[in-house]
Amino acid sequence: MKAKALTLALAALLPTTSVWAASDISALEARINDLESRLAQNEQATKKAEDTASSFEFHGYARSGLLMNDDRTGATGTGPYMTAAGDLGAPVGRLGLEDTNYLEANFIHNRQLDNGSNAMFKIMLADGVETSNDWTEDESELNIRQVYTQMSGIPSFTGAFANSTVWAGKRFDRDNFDIHFMDSDIVFLAGTGAGIYDVQMSDDWKANFSIYGRDFGSVESAGTDVENYIGTMNNHIGKVQVMLSAMYSNDNAKVTEDSTATDRAESGFHALFAYHDDSFYGRRDGFSKTGMLLGSGLGAQLKGIGSDGNLNSDAKAVRIFSYGVTNLNDTWSIAPALMAEISKDRIKDNDEFKWGTFNLRVQQNFNENFAMVYEGSYQYMDLDNSVDTAKGSYYKATIAPTLKLSTVAGFFDRPELRFAVSYVDWSNDLDNFAVSTATGATTMGNGGETIFALQMETWF
Amino acid sequence: MKAKALTLALAALLPTTSVWAASDISALEARINDLESRLAQNEQATKKAEDTASSFEFHGYARSGLLMNDDRTGATGTGPYMTAAGDLGAPVGRLGLEDTNYLEANFIHNRQLDNGSNAMFKIMLADGVETSNDWTEDESELNIRQVYTQMSGIPSFTGAFANSTVWAGKRFDRDNFDIHFMDSDIVFLAGTGAGIYDVQMSDDWKANFSIYGRDFGSVESAGTDVENYIGTMNNHIGKVQVMLSAMYSNDNAKVTEDSTATDRAESGFHALFAYHDDSFYGRRDGFSKTGMLLGSGLGAQLKGIGSDGNLNSDAKAVRIFSYGVTNLNDTWSIAPALMAEISKDRIKDNDEFKWGTFNLRVQQNFNENFAMVYEGSYQYMDLDNSVDTAKGSYYKATIAPTLKLSTVAGFFDRPELRFAVSYVDWSNDLDNFAVSTATGATTMGNGGETIFALQMETWF
Amino acid sequence: MKAKALTLALAALLPTTSVWAASDISALEARINDLESRLAQNEQATKKAEDTASSFEFHGYARSGLLMNDDRTGATGTGPYMTAAGDLGAPVGRLGLEDTNYLEANFIHNRQLDNGSNAMFKIMLADGVETSNDWTEDESELNIRQVYTQMSGIPSFTGAFANSTVWAGKRFDRDNFDIHFMDSDIVFLAGTGAGIYDVQMSDDWKANFSIYGRDFGSVESAGTDVENYIGTMNNHIGKVQVMLSAMYSNDNAKVTEDSTATDRAESGFHALFAYHDDSFYGRRDGFSKTGMLLGSGLGAQLKGIGSDGNLNSDAKAVRIFSYGVTNLNDTWSIAPALMAEISKDRIKDNDEFKWGTFNLRVQQNFNENFAMVYEGSYQYMDLDNSVDTAKGSYYKATIAPTLKLSTVAGFFDRPELRFAVSYVDWSNDLDNFAVSTATGATTMGNGGETIFALQMETWF
Repeated sequence: MKAKALTLALAALLPTTSVWAASDISALEARINDLESRLAQNEQATKKAEDTASSFEFHGYARSGLLMNDDRTGATGTGPYMTAAGDLGAPVGRLGLEDTNYLEANFIHNRQLDNGSNAMFKIMLADGVETSNDWTEDESELNIRQVYTQMSGIPSFTGAFANSTVWAGKRFDRDNFDIHFMDSDIVFLAGTGAGIYDVQMSDDWKANFSIYGRDFGSVESAGTDVENYIGTMNNHIGKVQVMLSAMYSNDNAKVTEDSTATDRAESGFHALFAYHDDSFYGRRDGFSKTGMLLGSGLGAQLKGIGSDGNLNSDAKAVRIFSYGVTNLNDTWSIAPALMAEISKDRIKDNDEFKWGTFNLRVQQNFNENFAMVYEGSYQYMDLDNSVDTAKGSYYKATIAPTLKLSTVAGFFDRPELRFAVSYVDWSNDLDNFAVSTATGATTMGNGGETIFALQMETWF
Repeated sequence: MKAKALTLALAALLPTTSVWAASDISALEARINDLESRLAQNEQATKKAEDTASSFEFHGYARSGLLMNDDRTGATGTGPYMTAAGDLGAPVGRLGLEDTNYLEANFIHNRQLDNGSNAMFKIMLADGVETSNDWTEDESELNIRQVYTQMSGIPSFTGAFANSTVWAGKRFDRDNFDIHFMDSDIVFLAGTGAGIYDVQMSDDWKANFSIYGRDFGSVESAGTDVENYIGTMNNHIGKVQVMLSAMYSNDNAKVTEDSTATDRAESGFHALFAYHDDSFYGRRDGFSKTGMLLGSGLGAQLKGIGSDGNLNSDAKAVRIFSYGVTNLNDTWSIAPALMAEISKDRIKDNDEFKWGTFNLRVQQNFNENFAMVYEGSYQYMDLDNSVDTAKGSYYKATIAPTLKLSTVAGFFDRPELRFAVSYVDWSNDLDNFAVSTATGATTMGNGGETIFALQMETWF
Repeated sequence: MKAKALTLALAALLPTTSVWAASDISALEARINDLESRLAQNEQATKKAEDTASSFEFHGYARSGLLMNDDRTGATGTGPYMTAAGDLGAPVGRLGLEDTNYLEANFIHNRQLDNGSNAMFKIMLADGVETSNDWTEDESELNIRQVYTQMSGIPSFTGAFANSTVWAGKRFDRDNFDIHFMDSDIVFLAGTGAGIYDVQMSDDWKANFSIYGRDFGSVESAGTDVENYIGTMNNHIGKVQVMLSAMYSNDNAKVTEDSTATDRAESGFHALFAYHDDSFYGRRDGFSKTGMLLGSGLGAQLKGIGSDGNLNSDAKAVRIFSYGVTNLNDTWSIAPALMAEISKDRIKDNDEFKWGTFNLRVQQNFNENFAMVYEGSYQYMDLDNSVDTAKGSYYKATIAPTLKLSTVAGFFDRPELRFAVSYVDWSNDLDNFAVSTATGATTMGNGGETIFALQMETWF
């Protein structure tokens, strides 16, 4: 009897919940079991959704806009290569001058194996038309600029090749880089071939090796397809880049179509020396890049390596460049850029071309979304195509009220929607000069023009 | 001893689980901890997968099919603009008449910032070929019809602009709308420019402002690119739309290529008044739209605003339209449509064109997936191009057994796979008439033809 | 007093955790509640991400590469159809011979309804250029090869149609199949039309029915668009395939453009009999396919059914094929293939063409990523175009060091990055012969050439 009474007393004493805790805990356990199995399923489903989503990538660059000159008609012939030296690859600042609706759309497929290896396949669909109309079939330049595959993480690659990427197909070289503000690559190595990136030569030295082919036309009588084969070793030693290319194009001297060269080169050499600084000339946050390019024969087209077959066998060229980008404070950012070149015996024996461009892009932020962007550009030209000569200057000033998602992200955040007013002018001496000695070659025409632009630009 | 005996008694008395509850709860707690951290990770992974998946969108419209006439050869010249008045933009019902393999593929990139702002980039790749063959390089019309960026949710936009969207590039205006059954937009404003949508003028009044440029050709001698600049204010006041456009194209009078106008207009005005009813003429569920368009000079092309440079400076035109869609019951849906226009001094002084089209599309559902679709179309034309005249009627009847994923979703659910038989005929007086006074202009030819079609149509 | 003492004793006896278990369990319960609601949300979010991700698919085939001959210029005219019999559709082994940058990019939209029905929309963008350059606008062959919709899982389809898929538009037939190593389809049925797949005729018998249209040109004087209408019944009875096609092209005899036939056929018949073995000729794992094709009139183009309008009304052709693929062991895989055809009165009365190709592709794996691929190809030709005759042999040997993500996955795993050296030669008798009797028709030229290739190939 005592025990019973005590039990009752105890039951009252114990926390009441303890009484139903057992079944409650079982219930909780069941719910946890259920959660665990559902979560496991959902983790797999999430993984699958992630894999599906990330197996495809869409990237692009585009600009589209409307240009009007002070005659209230469409501006023609404007753009970063509008000067007489433009045919030599001499750019000026691009802001407010580009009338093309230009598009690069990249479609990418990624494949990954469990062993860590992966393959990337990329195509680039590109187009560039000047018309403002929406159905552009007549003017369309749609084409596939890139179609290639690359593989990385390959298990049987070890030692110096452990982190290498191999590729084949048609592509823009991965390590091309540009001065965006002048729409000019420093080097633009592209074509069809194969190569390997990131061979670790030593702790601080990585090298890329590649062979690219380019087409120069045909020798009709012989049914021969003339190609230029470019072998490149591209070295990154710390911040220093040394890129060496040799090229050979058998029978190029026999190509006659669109040929104006005294003696078309069949071989060439090209070198780039660059210093990639992760600060603005060692003085501020930002970045800067400075260097020199040299080339002879087919290598004398210093930007588009091996892309020009109409070069003289004696052609020689040297180009220097320097540019940088820095934010001065929350309001102001600046990007100065310099590029200059001398080339001789380039197309004709005894021709000689000198040009230099200085460009300054400035961004002034007003609030999170609105900035004024300014650009001043100056180019000096001293051009002798062996028949005619011209010497003088080109200058441009642009102001562009600009809308951005985030102005603080600086120069390179896109999209930008902008209105721009530019004034361009140049020395009269340049008006009727053309680098090409072909009859009817396009000339600069008269300067002194105000250009209005509505434009979007984006990349992603 | 008593205490011990009691303890044992108590141990038996207490629920057995209570004994291991402590460690059990710890175990459950550990499992919950684990679940919580896994779920947190998975939520992030899901967010990332969602973001990745939704940063890209693929949308499109396409139709593809095979047409055969009663001579058992491919039908030629058929389509919604097949009549003599088609050159004036006068459509007839499209069902069963379209032989083109037409495609609009939209690739969209979305970018979102944490501050709520977002950017949308869109390209539209389009093509239209008649051939049934699979390799269509010779006939290909592939082109980029749209390439633009728009931004919305911009934090520094406040007040009337708080919900505005800004854009620049090449595009179809967002607020274009059409009578699908006649393949005719009511307005089709498109080109390259910039604008802003949804400026809140008052509680019930939103306005869009835009500038679009169009190309009209060139004045070769002057190296001038003739463009038409169209400024538009598009107002939505409740269900009423008032859209006003003025346009100006300097030097258009000097363009000679493909020009037949007496005196090419260099400016124009265009107005649209529309009532967007969210019921079928106030009588039933569905919708209906009714309105009028007016234009003069370059504005006399009433559908494609500012898209036609070959208009007379005295051109004037007025168009009315009304159409609606309603489901009568689970089986029957109907969509009547009316469009009519008068234009004068349109291309040549003293030309005068009158036309009116009535079209009726009917859908009869048989089950979840199968419907019979019927279309009757009638067009009256009274055409005087200042040299010749023609007057008469066109009529068409089509019956199309149609397969759909869901017939109950009505007229606008796609895809549709259909077989169609159409009979078309017209007055003899129209056979050899052309709106254009150019020599060799295409005429209607003879009527009285039966046309068989196999077709798919989709949008998404 | 006793009870109190006992209580204290009990409190010491019970696990201490029991004391706070009640609130602890409540806390756990709250966390489980939270987990459950978060997981439910996340499951929905995952579902949405999955749906978004899987509503779009990107698939493709591409090859891109650089070919150089022993003159160190671009190889021209090489490829699987390089022989004199190539014009008849006679292929040789493709490895190392293809210079084109060829691309098929498929963009797919999937739509699913809750009732289990779904629609698939597909476009194929294709291009093929030989140039190694990156801007290929002048050579571009970009075109839309496919644009179609298909529906499956349609609830109102029952009985024999329960698992059927219906489609309309422009497409490659789903059941086309090929000998990949010779870049030759066994049948390539394609065009614009409509059809149904997988009608269950009996337990072991499925049939497809389709109508495809093809364009053959026009009769200018009559404004007639000449099309070929091909009706096909394609049966799969176990491993046996019986595919029967009849075709009719009114007015084809009147087409004169590019016509060399004695009397252009206006109808035709085509049959394929094939045995699809899921083993390597019943002897090993792998697969093999063996069969025969017969055709007359417009059906005498045995591969591309109904695709050639320039066939003689008396044309008759028969073709046999057999090929298989098997892994001999972890190192070696082999794929032999045979194809041979006889055709008579094919284009001209009394012409007669005989050819046969044997091809052997062998893969030797060295490790997970590296394989040597070998290909030997032999073709015999006995060709009489009714004016000239030629008889002789073509042979090719290729060795290709190849990089793959996984060599063990066999012949068909892609991408492959390869270097290849090929030697091709043929009988002198074939040098100047062309199947076509048109003046200036391309001939084989001289043999005895070594060809070097850098290439990628992928599909996904």
